[in-house]
Amino acid sequence: MKSTIRILGIDPGSQITGYGVIDWADGKAVPVRWGEVRTSGDHSARLKTIFSTVTELVKELQPAEIAVERVFLSRNADSALKLGQARAAAICGTFAIDASIHEYSARHIKKAIVGNGGAEKAQVQHMVRLLLSIREAVQADAADALAAAICHAHERSTSALMLQAAVRA
Amino acid sequence: MKSTIRILGIDPGSQITGYGVIDWADGKAVPVRWGEVRTSGDHSARLKTIFSTVTELVKELQPAEIAVERVFLSRNADSALKLGQARAAAICGTFAIDASIHEYSARHIKKAIVGNGGAEKAQVQHMVRLLLSIREAVQADAADALAAAICHAHERSTSALMLQAAVRA
Repeated sequence: MKSTIRILGIDPGSQITGYGVIDWADGKAVPVRWGEVRTSGDHSARLKTIFSTVTELVKELQPAEIAVERVFLSRNADSALKLGQARAAAICGTFAIDASIHEYSARHIKKAIVGNGGAEKAQVQHMVRLLLSIREAVQADAADALAAAICHAHERSTSALMLQAAVRA
Repeated sequence: MKSTIRILGIDPGSQITGYGVIDWADGKAVPVRWGEVRTSGDHSARLKTIFSTVTELVKELQPAEIAVERVFLSRNADSALKLGQARAAAICGTFAIDASIHEYSARHIKKAIVGNGGAEKAQVQHMVRLLLSIREAVQADAADALAAAICHAHERSTSALMLQAAVRA
């Protein structure tokens, strides 16, 4: 568990897609980069912006694992379609490198970060800044993406510990 | 209007994505290649199959224009999400080359090919084989993709003729 693992978190959206990269080692997360991709124009133009930004990002920072927010389905078909397209464009962007992809629901991520699956956006922003010792403000969707990355870091550590315990037992 | 234009038609679906490439010159369509991409496995694996197949296809055949079936929205949110993801993976695959992307509703395509927006799949298959002089059977989704390509070929010719008429007038 001494090695550093780089994780990219993505919070997809058709208008704003958040991303956040962390380095995880010895149970500690260090922020590497975070931000938001804002899209405009027609369907294909939006997808191209998300796709190419994520492609550039993974090529430059080479994350080993990707955590993507799973889609919340109590929306109407039109929103679901747009969200699905944005999500797939982000995921296709990560295919430029050979990273494993993991999905977590927004509820699961909030529970992991704030301790409450129904937490407000502002609480997630606050906890992400606290956990990563970021002083400046973090945009809401970038915070959600960093939260997804931290959530995945915790999940993988827990699985590894459980595996170690099972091997020792 | 003497030059040949190569058009890729795509009929996206989360389980089966049809594709069809035609060359269009002097009001005549010649089939180049067609087929179906069948996906299996989890979400990301399916998207990767669609994305990489389309990427390889456009790199090899270099279509100048892409025609994609627009999504039919009277489905539930879950279907819309899956379809949106498949559609975006196919579209992102075409970003490997610099082709323009055009969207047509299934109704519009059927009307262009069969003359009836509510035509059955079998009628589309029949007309596509007839229009392209293909002797062997064409799978349903590949036929829909070829139909999208032919529909786009007609649309662009009509626009060009209208433009010529406007310039002459």
